[in-house]
Amino acid sequence: MKIYFATSNPWKYREIKEKFNNAGLDLGRINTQLLELQDVTNEEVALISARDAFKKFKKPLFVEDSGIYIKALKGFPGLYSSFIFKAIGLKGILKLMENKKNRQAEFISVIVYKDSKQEKVFKGICRGSITNKIRGRGGFGFDPIFVPKGYNTTFAENYAIKEKISHRVKSVNKLIKWLKNGKQKQKSKRSK
Amino acid sequence: MKIYFATSNPWKYREIKEKFNNAGLDLGRINTQLLELQDVTNEEVALISARDAFKKFKKPLFVEDSGIYIKALKGFPGLYSSFIFKAIGLKGILKLMENKKNRQAEFISVIVYKDSKQEKVFKGICRGSITNKIRGRGGFGFDPIFVPKGYNTTFAENYAIKEKISHRVKSVNKLIKWLKNGKQKQKSKRSK
Repeated sequence: MKIYFATSNPWKYREIKEKFNNAGLDLGRINTQLLELQDVTNEEVALISARDAFKKFKKPLFVEDSGIYIKALKGFPGLYSSFIFKAIGLKGILKLMENKKNRQAEFISVIVYKDSKQEKVFKGICRGSITNKIRGRGGFGFDPIFVPKGYNTTFAENYAIKEKISHRVKSVNKLIKWLKNGKQKQKSKRSK
Repeated sequence: MKIYFATSNPWKYREIKEKFNNAGLDLGRINTQLLELQDVTNEEVALISARDAFKKFKKPLFVEDSGIYIKALKGFPGLYSSFIFKAIGLKGILKLMENKKNRQAEFISVIVYKDSKQEKVFKGICRGSITNKIRGRGGFGFDPIFVPKGYNTTFAENYAIKEKISHRVKSVNKLIKWLKNGKQKQKSKRSK
């Protein structure tokens, strides 16, 4: 019986094809882009988390997932911001950004609200740039290396600014507006 | 109605709690570790990919997912190896490893075989260390900066070694052995 190796990677295919030949087994290739973790979006991560938390706690709740996307690093650390923050820290990010002229970055925050009747997503984006060194002691995470567009200070140097314009402020404000407007009216938009 | 913010992050909670107070809304906290992408294992990624590919192609097939886990970087890039390879490259990894004394790393390969009747996982590990510079032109991915334990050359400098002892050779050999032994016998172990 012919068996197929589903992969978009020709080197991996070559490595494995030879082993199959040597073993007298028939191997074909399905050249396809597999579903991979990197295709998953912030929104999907937050949805998974919200459903998981709701299953456990059975209370109206929301979760928030955020990440920083650096242009010169092709979106890195993006979805993996918290894992990468723990692994390589701010110094690691600054090392990777040494000699990069394009310092553009954006913070994205996704909130997923869930109760027994509905599920709703709110998103906030804050554009800015990555500094050359760690600046400021306020905030947390990537705050000391992020300067929002139109300002000269990092979120860690000027936390009051963060509290006004951050990605998370934007997503939270959308959530609050929706809650205050009476989400009850919107029950028709329910999903599982 | 009280709404809960499910988060293990006290800073995020503080940021959002204040907004809710200002809006006259009642917010509680569920202090819990959410299900996050970083909890997902190589094996689960490969399972998702295999099921997805089988659904599309309806042929007996397998997928392979591999990653390199660097001890001094707390397992980075791990599960995200291919995304991180594209984003920061070998130079990025070497930058992060500057001045790190502990150079230990391991490659892990997971193969998931799937047909209409069964699903089976095969795993291979290859231990070694990260070099100080890029060495060799063979192979692909992280091969030029990985020296397997007991050798002095990188996988890229000595591809013949890779073909004998790599993580993927180990997982493939397990798959082949299983196929040759007649996986038919093992149908009782089927899963969905």
